Amino acid sequence: MAELSVALFGAGRIGNVHAANIVAHPDTRLRYVVDPVDSAAEALVSRTGAERVDEVTALDNPGVAAIVICSDTSTHAGLIESGIGAGKAVFCEKPIDLDIKRVRSVLDTIDGSELPLFVGFNRRFDPAVAEVRRRAGTGELGDIELVTVVSKDPDGGLPIEYLKVSGGMFRDMTIHDFDMARHLLGEEPTTVSATAATLVSQDIADIGDIDTASISMQTASGKIAVITNSRRCSAGYDQRVEVHGSTGTARTDNVPKSMFSIETAGGTQRDNPKFFFTDRYAESYALEWGRFVEVLRNGAAPEPTGVDGYRALLLAEAAYLSLEERRTVTVNETENRVLGAG
Amino acid sequence: MAELSVALFGAGRIGNVHAANIVAHPDTRLRYVVDPVDSAAEALVSRTGAERVDEVTALDNPGVAAIVICSDTSTHAGLIESGIGAGKAVFCEKPIDLDIKRVRSVLDTIDGSELPLFVGFNRRFDPAVAEVRRRAGTGELGDIELVTVVSKDPDGGLPIEYLKVSGGMFRDMTIHDFDMARHLLGEEPTTVSATAATLVSQDIADIGDIDTASISMQTASGKIAVITNSRRCSAGYDQRVEVHGSTGTARTDNVPKSMFSIETAGGTQRDNPKFFFTDRYAESYALEWGRFVEVLRNGAAPEPTGVDGYRALLLAEAAYLSLEERRTVTVNETENRVLGAG
Amino acid sequence: MAELSVALFGAGRIGNVHAANIVAHPDTRLRYVVDPVDSAAEALVSRTGAERVDEVTALDNPGVAAIVICSDTSTHAGLIESGIGAGKAVFCEKPIDLDIKRVRSVLDTIDGSELPLFVGFNRRFDPAVAEVRRRAGTGELGDIELVTVVSKDPDGGLPIEYLKVSGGMFRDMTIHDFDMARHLLGEEPTTVSATAATLVSQDIADIGDIDTASISMQTASGKIAVITNSRRCSAGYDQRVEVHGSTGTARTDNVPKSMFSIETAGGTQRDNPKFFFTDRYAESYALEWGRFVEVLRNGAAPEPTGVDGYRALLLAEAAYLSLEERRTVTVNETENRVLGAG
Amino acid sequence: MAELSVALFGAGRIGNVHAANIVAHPDTRLRYVVDPVDSAAEALVSRTGAERVDEVTALDNPGVAAIVICSDTSTHAGLIESGIGAGKAVFCEKPIDLDIKRVRSVLDTIDGSELPLFVGFNRRFDPAVAEVRRRAGTGELGDIELVTVVSKDPDGGLPIEYLKVSGGMFRDMTIHDFDMARHLLGEEPTTVSATAATLVSQDIADIGDIDTASISMQTASGKIAVITNSRRCSAGYDQRVEVHGSTGTARTDNVPKSMFSIETAGGTQRDNPKFFFTDRYAESYALEWGRFVEVLRNGAAPEPTGVDGYRALLLAEAAYLSLEERRTVTVNETENRVLGAG
Repeated sequence: MAELSVALFGAGRIGNVHAANIVAHPDTRLRYVVDPVDSAAEALVSRTGAERVDEVTALDNPGVAAIVICSDTSTHAGLIESGIGAGKAVFCEKPIDLDIKRVRSVLDTIDGSELPLFVGFNRRFDPAVAEVRRRAGTGELGDIELVTVVSKDPDGGLPIEYLKVSGGMFRDMTIHDFDMARHLLGEEPTTVSATAATLVSQDIADIGDIDTASISMQTASGKIAVITNSRRCSAGYDQRVEVHGSTGTARTDNVPKSMFSIETAGGTQRDNPKFFFTDRYAESYALEWGRFVEVLRNGAAPEPTGVDGYRALLLAEAAYLSLEERRTVTVNETENRVLGAG
Repeated sequence: MAELSVALFGAGRIGNVHAANIVAHPDTRLRYVVDPVDSAAEALVSRTGAERVDEVTALDNPGVAAIVICSDTSTHAGLIESGIGAGKAVFCEKPIDLDIKRVRSVLDTIDGSELPLFVGFNRRFDPAVAEVRRRAGTGELGDIELVTVVSKDPDGGLPIEYLKVSGGMFRDMTIHDFDMARHLLGEEPTTVSATAATLVSQDIADIGDIDTASISMQTASGKIAVITNSRRCSAGYDQRVEVHGSTGTARTDNVPKSMFSIETAGGTQRDNPKFFFTDRYAESYALEWGRFVEVLRNGAAPEPTGVDGYRALLLAEAAYLSLEERRTVTVNETENRVLGAG
Repeated sequence: MAELSVALFGAGRIGNVHAANIVAHPDTRLRYVVDPVDSAAEALVSRTGAERVDEVTALDNPGVAAIVICSDTSTHAGLIESGIGAGKAVFCEKPIDLDIKRVRSVLDTIDGSELPLFVGFNRRFDPAVAEVRRRAGTGELGDIELVTVVSKDPDGGLPIEYLKVSGGMFRDMTIHDFDMARHLLGEEPTTVSATAATLVSQDIADIGDIDTASISMQTASGKIAVITNSRRCSAGYDQRVEVHGSTGTARTDNVPKSMFSIETAGGTQRDNPKFFFTDRYAESYALEWGRFVEVLRNGAAPEPTGVDGYRALLLAEAAYLSLEERRTVTVNETENRVLGAG
Repeated sequence: MAELSVALFGAGRIGNVHAANIVAHPDTRLRYVVDPVDSAAEALVSRTGAERVDEVTALDNPGVAAIVICSDTSTHAGLIESGIGAGKAVFCEKPIDLDIKRVRSVLDTIDGSELPLFVGFNRRFDPAVAEVRRRAGTGELGDIELVTVVSKDPDGGLPIEYLKVSGGMFRDMTIHDFDMARHLLGEEPTTVSATAATLVSQDIADIGDIDTASISMQTASGKIAVITNSRRCSAGYDQRVEVHGSTGTARTDNVPKSMFSIETAGGTQRDNPKFFFTDRYAESYALEWGRFVEVLRNGAAPEPTGVDGYRALLLAEAAYLSLEERRTVTVNETENRVLGAG
């Protein structure tokens, strides 16, 4: 079977993660790297044997089956449209855009295309998360009633320069948790209620962002999902989900750096959780790429899709609206407001 | 040192728990048992060597240093007032009353008395919870930012007859969690936002109660506490608290029935959590009694007090108000409303 | 049903453990306490309502159904013989005697009696150990192949005065582990190979005892059991068993003092194991007493019996012989040697 | 800094593990692959860009800094001698040879060379094992007294064809555990006592091998190490070490496939340990390669060395001698016997 040629846009941290998985997968080949930053592009090219080209070359070559978008957030929407327009399958890192109206317009533009748009909510492919989801599907948990998502960045994980252009905590960080909640509830949340504060640093206060929050959501049938967030966890990346059902509870626990422990008169000590997403979710990125390849190979339905990206962002917008108005808001009123606001 | 004589009101399940601890403690003696139900009273008396008397006898005897109130909830408020009036130290099981105005009036009545009123929020004395609180106090956690309380009754734990007269989930069950949140935050919550549903059983729906909920609270300085509740947990009593601070996170995990495990090709199995509160919190009741004795012996400040009972119930009232009005409410407006409503 | 009256010999630490369980059990009554030490006997009598008597009175009273032997080791053998002779059921703390020939003579003396001799290998009744044993019985583990027993006393658990008269580590401490190995193997060990050292303290070296050891045993069919021992474990009592079978492995883990944990940048800390046997095995003593009552009530076969006490001690003798001769010895040759040596 | 060029002998399973690490390391380049099997060699060459050559070409090229020996065991000794003779640093998978006299002669042959011989006892580089070793070095554990190594292959891990030519369990599998024991004791074992059986399969019995064992070793100062082995563990690869010292105990636990768990009325289930060494020890192989590069780059002392390979094999020989003579043997007498036997 012929290898699938891939063009990668963006040779930064997450671009390198995907590049390694593309190279390691027996069915895919990293053909092109597109990145305006010389050092990043050249380093990646020399390590992988890919070719550095510009966007036009990458999109014009009919031998390229798929593009992977890991470039600056501001370029995502346009690249999705160009990519689909050029007949490529598209894998896009989240978010599609920080402006939900732009996300909506992208989805409208590509509506009707048979080419897949796959959005990089990698956590769905984490083996522990996937097993929680699988068990929810087998019926072992009975009716899903209460989903809990704990999500905290490690202390020192992200510089303030990143946070400044991140779009705000709900759109940048919690968006993964909104996707987790939707994925694990198995039913769309219809109401959102948020509580938040800025407790972590003056820097974050200065850019007008929040850093600590809890968000409760509810579906039409009454199921509840709760997210708790912090931008700073001293022991490392805190990433846990729990699905409580009528006959069982499934959960994931943090992945320790190692299974070392020591016991002394002073107590029993274990290793801390892995520090951040490139370690903690390394396996999920590889499995995510495997799934994308299956989509390309076997025409399997892409998941998560652009619609998943849109719905997660819509929940972020609802959370902001709830904070602002200090009340439980509906997702519908949020959608009307954010789409109508332009 | 002379033994402290105790009169116990109520020889039901929780009365028996306290009776055993009174007998086992080297400094206390179970002198009287007061209970209108013959079988319960006689069984307890025969096992402990206590004497069965009526309320007047128990309160009139100047040799009785303290009364322990484990009788029907409707009798608590009156017994507190009579007990303090008769010069006894009072240990009262939660709640003081289901009607917060009555709780307020009890506190007003006994205001100025030097006799202690100790309210039975036993979980504060659980060794793991106490250690979380202690670590919060040492500064190891830095500034407290996010407190999480997971609290779920075991499947089959409580009959519908109990729930019918319980006062509603927030006042009966969550009240322990409100106390935990207050205890672990170290700062009074000022706002409350609740989400709830009735998912567990038609019986609970029929009595107009809820059985699944999440409650977010926030303090004036922005700290957040989140409670998640269910009336049904298939694997047993689910009781976990977590305090996330700027430099550390402390938590308690469920206590397994035993440390047994088995590994086969099909997976690794462990024992489930202890089934319900008499098992799970057995140690906390003994330690709670020890603390009460210290209050009597050394004049240590009682804790938790009647005020703690009042504040926890007030948070329950605020949660109901939030549910009703689908918004974040303040504790102050709740207090004005519930106290003014009569 | 009439209560079973019990006479307790020995009001020391372990005597008090059994006394509390006798009192708490609905079917048994602590009638007599026999102990030459005034303070110990009086304290126990005043707390329980039992009567302090001498040995003759206790044994002569036909209303006493059972005696519990917790007195000095040197008195065990004689009391078993007198007790059985007086028509009482006998519960005897381990060991029956430190001299295996005396143990053998006790068993010969009471041979033929229908009265039960129950020997206090309490660990068999620990809920986790009992579950391991139960699973071995269900076939879930397949054929048992390798049993591991880790057994270490806590640092500071036992004073040198105790060790001086203990009979040596294999007879005093490892005897419990020999019983565990026999219990979990489901087949009698036929060979023993021991390795040992004195590493813990000069005091132990001075009394000629060992304090650190590993013992391997094998059954006729080839199953292997391994015990590792130390007289000093810094973090507390280390008590773990593991049964590896052809289709599964069952194990027990140490019981932590509480389920508290704390995570900081410096690591994740948990509570240490419970400190020593009165904490760690409290539940097992209560369940053991319950089993003894069943033996009395329902004529169930006593287990563990005097034979179990003898066989465990014989393995200790074999371990000493192996150490001395630096070779794998058989249990049979050991038995011939120790019984023939007098 | 110039890349170090490497020639790899053997393109089988373990050869591929090392090849991937050589490619991923920024300082090393896979230049040559030598393997007589066309399919294996070609597949590896096509994936990595290396060149397939014969042994002479690989050794003659002065640009090749190091050779990595993953070929058939029978070729190891000769390749070490040729490699060192050709001026290459040598990384050799264990064992150097199944015949300890041949191992001895290799060490004698290369004695005096300044070129490093690094033997692939990868487990030393497992992060959890390395942390145990590090803590032993900091003094946190006090004096090391008792080392435990549990090592069991997964059920179905190895075909009988492999076992047939493996040299026997002690030389093939336990050799890793002997190295662990030496590494963690920090002192050379001087005596060995082994117990073993063939319980796993008739196939193993038919080839005259053992499959279940315990081995106790002791050092001159009395420290004890115990290994337990089985060729079949139903739940997966069982790999645990424990170092008990006078002031602390450090250990490693099995690495679960994921941190998933599920709780139902029937029990709490977790994921099994990772299945076998390529999963379980993946990290250790990468870190091992990193250490080898440091040896090459900075002239750091190689560890483990050929002497480590020899001493581990010598302990295997002592274990066989102990089994045969049913006694505790010394390592010295074993060495005299095995070296003198030819």
